[in-house]
Amino acid sequence: MCGVFGVWGHPEAANIAYLGLHALQHRGQESAGIAAADGGRITSHRAMGLVQAAFSEKDLAGLPGTAAIGHVRYSTAGGSHLRNAQPFAVDTAAGSIAIGHNGNLTNHEKLRAELEQQGSIYQTGSDTETILHLFARSRGESVEARIIEALTRVEGAYSLVLLTPRELFAVRDPRGFRPLCIGKMRGQGEDRWLVASEPTSFDLLGATFVRDVEPGELVRIDDTGLHSSMLPMRSPRKTCLFEYVYFARPDSVLDEASVYEVRKALGRTLAQEHPLPASFLAQGSAAGVVIPVPDSGVPAAIGFAEASGLPFEMGLIRSHYVGRTFIEPQESIRHFGVRLKLHPNRAVLEGKHVIVVDDSIVRGTTSRKIVKMIREAGAKSVHVRISSPPVEWPCYYGINTPTRGELIAASHSEEEISRYLEADGLGYLSRQGLVDGVAHATRGKLAKAPDTRFCDACFSGDYPVPFEGESSLPDSSRRNLRVVAG
Amino acid sequence: MCGVFGVWGHPEAANIAYLGLHALQHRGQESAGIAAADGGRITSHRAMGLVQAAFSEKDLAGLPGTAAIGHVRYSTAGGSHLRNAQPFAVDTAAGSIAIGHNGNLTNHEKLRAELEQQGSIYQTGSDTETILHLFARSRGESVEARIIEALTRVEGAYSLVLLTPRELFAVRDPRGFRPLCIGKMRGQGEDRWLVASEPTSFDLLGATFVRDVEPGELVRIDDTGLHSSMLPMRSPRKTCLFEYVYFARPDSVLDEASVYEVRKALGRTLAQEHPLPASFLAQGSAAGVVIPVPDSGVPAAIGFAEASGLPFEMGLIRSHYVGRTFIEPQESIRHFGVRLKLHPNRAVLEGKHVIVVDDSIVRGTTSRKIVKMIREAGAKSVHVRISSPPVEWPCYYGINTPTRGELIAASHSEEEISRYLEADGLGYLSRQGLVDGVAHATRGKLAKAPDTRFCDACFSGDYPVPFEGESSLPDSSRRNLRVVAG
Amino acid sequence: MCGVFGVWGHPEAANIAYLGLHALQHRGQESAGIAAADGGRITSHRAMGLVQAAFSEKDLAGLPGTAAIGHVRYSTAGGSHLRNAQPFAVDTAAGSIAIGHNGNLTNHEKLRAELEQQGSIYQTGSDTETILHLFARSRGESVEARIIEALTRVEGAYSLVLLTPRELFAVRDPRGFRPLCIGKMRGQGEDRWLVASEPTSFDLLGATFVRDVEPGELVRIDDTGLHSSMLPMRSPRKTCLFEYVYFARPDSVLDEASVYEVRKALGRTLAQEHPLPASFLAQGSAAGVVIPVPDSGVPAAIGFAEASGLPFEMGLIRSHYVGRTFIEPQESIRHFGVRLKLHPNRAVLEGKHVIVVDDSIVRGTTSRKIVKMIREAGAKSVHVRISSPPVEWPCYYGINTPTRGELIAASHSEEEISRYLEADGLGYLSRQGLVDGVAHATRGKLAKAPDTRFCDACFSGDYPVPFEGESSLPDSSRRNLRVVAG
Amino acid sequence: MCGVFGVWGHPEAANIAYLGLHALQHRGQESAGIAAADGGRITSHRAMGLVQAAFSEKDLAGLPGTAAIGHVRYSTAGGSHLRNAQPFAVDTAAGSIAIGHNGNLTNHEKLRAELEQQGSIYQTGSDTETILHLFARSRGESVEARIIEALTRVEGAYSLVLLTPRELFAVRDPRGFRPLCIGKMRGQGEDRWLVASEPTSFDLLGATFVRDVEPGELVRIDDTGLHSSMLPMRSPRKTCLFEYVYFARPDSVLDEASVYEVRKALGRTLAQEHPLPASFLAQGSAAGVVIPVPDSGVPAAIGFAEASGLPFEMGLIRSHYVGRTFIEPQESIRHFGVRLKLHPNRAVLEGKHVIVVDDSIVRGTTSRKIVKMIREAGAKSVHVRISSPPVEWPCYYGINTPTRGELIAASHSEEEISRYLEADGLGYLSRQGLVDGVAHATRGKLAKAPDTRFCDACFSGDYPVPFEGESSLPDSSRRNLRVVAG
Repeated sequence: MCGVFGVWGHPEAANIAYLGLHALQHRGQESAGIAAADGGRITSHRAMGLVQAAFSEKDLAGLPGTAAIGHVRYSTAGGSHLRNAQPFAVDTAAGSIAIGHNGNLTNHEKLRAELEQQGSIYQTGSDTETILHLFARSRGESVEARIIEALTRVEGAYSLVLLTPRELFAVRDPRGFRPLCIGKMRGQGEDRWLVASEPTSFDLLGATFVRDVEPGELVRIDDTGLHSSMLPMRSPRKTCLFEYVYFARPDSVLDEASVYEVRKALGRTLAQEHPLPASFLAQGSAAGVVIPVPDSGVPAAIGFAEASGLPFEMGLIRSHYVGRTFIEPQESIRHFGVRLKLHPNRAVLEGKHVIVVDDSIVRGTTSRKIVKMIREAGAKSVHVRISSPPVEWPCYYGINTPTRGELIAASHSEEEISRYLEADGLGYLSRQGLVDGVAHATRGKLAKAPDTRFCDACFSGDYPVPFEGESSLPDSSRRNLRVVAG
Repeated sequence: MCGVFGVWGHPEAANIAYLGLHALQHRGQESAGIAAADGGRITSHRAMGLVQAAFSEKDLAGLPGTAAIGHVRYSTAGGSHLRNAQPFAVDTAAGSIAIGHNGNLTNHEKLRAELEQQGSIYQTGSDTETILHLFARSRGESVEARIIEALTRVEGAYSLVLLTPRELFAVRDPRGFRPLCIGKMRGQGEDRWLVASEPTSFDLLGATFVRDVEPGELVRIDDTGLHSSMLPMRSPRKTCLFEYVYFARPDSVLDEASVYEVRKALGRTLAQEHPLPASFLAQGSAAGVVIPVPDSGVPAAIGFAEASGLPFEMGLIRSHYVGRTFIEPQESIRHFGVRLKLHPNRAVLEGKHVIVVDDSIVRGTTSRKIVKMIREAGAKSVHVRISSPPVEWPCYYGINTPTRGELIAASHSEEEISRYLEADGLGYLSRQGLVDGVAHATRGKLAKAPDTRFCDACFSGDYPVPFEGESSLPDSSRRNLRVVAG
Repeated sequence: MCGVFGVWGHPEAANIAYLGLHALQHRGQESAGIAAADGGRITSHRAMGLVQAAFSEKDLAGLPGTAAIGHVRYSTAGGSHLRNAQPFAVDTAAGSIAIGHNGNLTNHEKLRAELEQQGSIYQTGSDTETILHLFARSRGESVEARIIEALTRVEGAYSLVLLTPRELFAVRDPRGFRPLCIGKMRGQGEDRWLVASEPTSFDLLGATFVRDVEPGELVRIDDTGLHSSMLPMRSPRKTCLFEYVYFARPDSVLDEASVYEVRKALGRTLAQEHPLPASFLAQGSAAGVVIPVPDSGVPAAIGFAEASGLPFEMGLIRSHYVGRTFIEPQESIRHFGVRLKLHPNRAVLEGKHVIVVDDSIVRGTTSRKIVKMIREAGAKSVHVRISSPPVEWPCYYGINTPTRGELIAASHSEEEISRYLEADGLGYLSRQGLVDGVAHATRGKLAKAPDTRFCDACFSGDYPVPFEGESSLPDSSRRNLRVVAG
Repeated sequence: MCGVFGVWGHPEAANIAYLGLHALQHRGQESAGIAAADGGRITSHRAMGLVQAAFSEKDLAGLPGTAAIGHVRYSTAGGSHLRNAQPFAVDTAAGSIAIGHNGNLTNHEKLRAELEQQGSIYQTGSDTETILHLFARSRGESVEARIIEALTRVEGAYSLVLLTPRELFAVRDPRGFRPLCIGKMRGQGEDRWLVASEPTSFDLLGATFVRDVEPGELVRIDDTGLHSSMLPMRSPRKTCLFEYVYFARPDSVLDEASVYEVRKALGRTLAQEHPLPASFLAQGSAAGVVIPVPDSGVPAAIGFAEASGLPFEMGLIRSHYVGRTFIEPQESIRHFGVRLKLHPNRAVLEGKHVIVVDDSIVRGTTSRKIVKMIREAGAKSVHVRISSPPVEWPCYYGINTPTRGELIAASHSEEEISRYLEADGLGYLSRQGLVDGVAHATRGKLAKAPDTRFCDACFSGDYPVPFEGESSLPDSSRRNLRVVAG
């Protein structure tokens, strides 16, 4: 997954982008980059690691101008290389341009082969480079026309920010898979615009939320203000449900639904769909406790506790100090994994029937360790509740799910998964429950069951856009070339 | 503040210490160090920064042996130098010895002058070095006798770990200001012992909690097992209340009281001591919401919500990505401070009467920003509740409180502080409420009001041990010498 | 300036390239890079700095395969960015390819504009990228045919190494501006080939010098051995004289002339062309001393001493510890510059008439400081002798000379330069003397005065290839784009 | 080996020390440190590595004051730790003091045991710390009296700089093993003094050489000027011959003898003592060539060439780019060693009888590789000439020679060594020749054969001061303690 950010009309644009990326850090921790434009030229800086580590004061000072775009990238399982860090910045016959992309193109493989046949050279393994090659080959008379021509060729998921020396663009694909929104900062006289994957930086920057970028909308910002147009392609809206379940920050509002409220609603529905076992209830509510897997499971657990009448407690304590690499003793029988991050709170767990609420199960290995940890801390029984349906299919639209073979729910029943987790019970949310939860959090703006409005491919296998070629998978490394650094 | 750790009898002692320090990271983020003994010699490594950054695999491999001690140190406001990082390791006539110290000596200044007069040279600004000089000058016949002789000279707070090529010592000062406990690991045949400031690593390491080190107890561990003796000095027990309020990790049990349960009890009592305003209640419980300042305020807020009947919600979202240094735009009117770490969750706050629960107020500046942030997110009113009494006095026993002049409660009434915070109301917990909360969490092991059992100097000004000389303050930099690095 | 290296058929190709680049380090200290091929794919690593700093053992381990190319790049005055470090590695319709280039294309600007019009996107500011775009657009049926087609379009100086998953190519432009040679290592059964800008690594690697790559020759090495063909373009040979004067390492033999012997011969001729002043000679040879500006002036000074009968001494001692950045006191009146690198040896200089021999004068500022330093050390008189003609014109073929305006000899007579240097005399070598010196060092293989055989543009202004556009200058930064890092 | 530096009365004292250390870098490359005094307190910074790498501008800015001392330390074979880097800075009853030491104390082991018995604690493995402990225990009424009292207890070699908040001291032991000299900078009104191991920085800093510090002299510099006194202990002068042979920089003048002139004289005498073989001479002088092992062998080779009538040539080219760590291919049969640093110049060597002149042979392994390299480059015969006598004994006075067992001349005759080197001949300089060479270079200030004036223990085994205990050896690591970093 990735996050994109843009700012226009601010005298310290690169610094604003830096802060904006910080507030999108949860969307990608592998690399960070900023490109800035000063009306004449584009400068950029990209580096591996978190935003704070990737930029020094000197780095930011080397990015002059009043407009900037930024990008954070998620750490995928396989190799991660600086050459794939964004924004990409290139020179073309239409001038210099930089791009940041959240999403994944499904026909990238085919386009790449075609473009290479025509003499394009690829320097990255990224689908995003294809957009730049299409742009460079376009005969459009304006930069905007070239962007539109390029986008008519690509399929899949893209929330984009693009920067030229004199314009900032923000585009969301016609289905609107990934979020993108617009904010406005208080300036002196002139307008200062922000675009961002999520509105998480707006409070920090003293900006106000203006509106979401619509699916299929192209926003152009220049010295004459903000201009909107729609891409010529049309498709039904298919916004991603997993953003609400797990990916977005809880204080975000995406397409008018509060992520926190969605998650609480999912927790409430989950409690209704999976009533507590009779044996459990017989002992009175004091015998049980609802605990989240922090931090992502917290809102759903609060909703679950509310609906079930059981107390909400922090039965797992999350460490703030877990970085990437951890050295383990050689003789250690088990690998520490989640134990370095989550610590059982015996005072809450001992002697209790424990309902542990998490947002999803992917491979199942972490959940299994959590169940074990809770049981070892003295729980009488451990019941797992998941505030989303089983994840059975990989995502081709930008979320780094593993291959189907690694998804435990792709090949195991709930019964089998519960046994694998060594839990006393397991309950998943229904697909309808999930859709209703999102609708609920729009506070009446959505009808009750608009389930065609969302992409639920990871749960249902109903892919709104077919993917072409194995290499459209986000993890796959294409062809032969791999640049280790640089 | 600091944290200490020790391990005995483990083939990978340095790695175990590394993991142990990781689980004590909340007690000190400035520097980390480990000293290891292989029966013959002591090797050590110290570095600035978090445990994970301070040690590479090669660093750990360079620390052979089956016994080790470790130390993490808190970042004080002023300079922080590698030379002050612990453990200190030196050569003396009684052999090599390494020491790690949590606490603060109150008569250090006087002892240092006296020792220097006798020809001792100081290489650090730390009070801990004084213990080593006293040890080196002792005529005691055994290492243990020398340690005891040295400790009879010092006053104040010390939870110590000491390592020689053949012994591990753990000592807690007679008043027991700082915590210290013993754990046991499953080994093959022989005993594997752990000592730690808090038992937070025991689950991770597959160890079991054995008991607290008693105030005034000296524990010696060697090849013949664990031996206990009491220091000759006697004083009434004075364990620190602030460990429960803020410092310790919530999953810890200190001197038989669960920190999490203490905090929840404080929240409940706080709700009883400060009933909600009538205007507020008139609107029904749906009009109000209890939110914590995460993470430290979470348990008290849960307790408060329970006792008040108001819903508990996460109204402030904590970022996991805030490091030490953050670059701010030059024109930024306000400094970001807490805004980089805490984000208002508008979905929870908008249109609500908000009770925000925090553990303590020190200078008041952060609380003021939090109140403002909540109000800007649309709260109807903001009521601050603090799960401890006003902090009016600096700590001389190891906690890095600022000088009295900086403590807002030292010179302002609750009324005035509430006005400064721009809150609609402010309520502190009573001192009796605090002591009862700790007693409660021992689950009946303590009588109701043993308030003489604790040090509450930061709230009451009743200092169990006088401090001698201004330089006993943890922050003060002594004399002329300052080693910038090394 | 740059250096290129290639190795074929060695099980540790990347390590061999690393050693090969080390022995070419004098040709470029700004960045270093290696690309390796394992029959299937190409991996590469590039970094700023010296070879030893640019590669860790892990970096080399990440470059598997039995073939590799490498590149070192010179630090130009202006910015230097990782994106310009070579080898470049890209994917094209003809497969993956990596390239390393020593030289400079004179029609690069025009080609770039044309390629961008056709939709090519540029990611670097380098002329070398143009060769890859031409390659990618070629319709040639083999990789070799594509390379040849691309090269028929470019003009100027290029000694290239190119690597595909299954072939290594070495090419020298038809004029042979820059050197390139072939070596052979002892292998087990199969042939192990080396190509390098200079044969400096061959002794180190236990390899033997085979021959120079001929101007206009394309060498292809694959599993069937080494194959040679000639590019279709023909031009008279124009090898660079400045390589002999300054750039190449003295133990190199370039196009059959020993650099060391060339330089000694230049020194001898210089002594003959500029007899010592009568006043000087009157005092006997003991009154004078010949000293080099080390290290580049050493062989010429030895030759000069030999021919003049004056003693050769090390009157300037060179420091081995001068790196890039040096911190100077703020109040220092003069900048240290060369004084940090060269130290006057008073024992040699005091009371003597000093002949100081250097290879060339570019701006004159360093020579002026050297003269001053020698005089302050007590010399009676200081006579400067330069073992090349005045440098009056910038090089467009790969050497980083400054612009014409900065070349002191472009606008000043020898008389004026001598006055600027505050020397008691100045003598430059004649152009014929230079050409004869090179001819001499071929040990009879060249006739006496084949002066059309060499490029002497920097001395004469006779440019063998016109340069098109200001941007063909090596230093110029093109268009708008600048990638600060990455 | 080490180098020390001091500056007094300069507004940018730390920067001056930084430049001074740079010019002493050849005396120690392992670590560098500076301590500065601003009249009130002492600050210091020490780091591993070369001077340029060890100090950033910020580091220097953190060292305020008008007085400073500095130290560079040699990389010994064994471990090298920051804790052993100097200057050491400590607090004592007499105030803060910092020390930098070149030399080695021979009775350190005994003193350390005694001081530890009295309660001193050692934080380093260095003998220098002992001086500080003695200083701290002294009852002297002034800082100077305490220094003198401390020095009366120690034996061996010491050239010291010491800094207090208000005084700078420079001391040379009574025998004067290691050099130390005084310089003076141009200031504005007040005097600006320098002290340094060698006068190598004086030209760079625009300072003038004043005089050597005399053996047994203690120089005190404060606001009242420079004051000299003699230590109460008396011993005959025993200055180190090896400084002239190898260690000092050739442009230095030590105790009135120019190092360059000494070395040239040694070369001349060497030629006389070892006439060329008849077979060799029969072919005329054109058949032979004298080459140095650069850089240390250059002056002697010039002298040798002069006396023998053979031409001087650079037959070995030295690389400027060899750092500490070099990665070698795994399959490499031989380790590269000296081959990475020295390259044979075939044009000079091929077909010639080669006389290779080096300053000394320690283990013989490097010389053996050099002989082989010369022969492989086509030499007809290789004759080794060494401009010092055989090194048969380890140095206990500050030079890092290996143990006796590793010194090839300790157990092998010249005949045997020649065979081991696979040379066609080997000639060492006589001891008398060495002493005469030094005398010669004083330009008449010394009588012809004052051989009792020098320490030649490494050649003769006549140790002027006995060493007590194996641990007086510079390499030995003492006792148990080893601090890996910090």
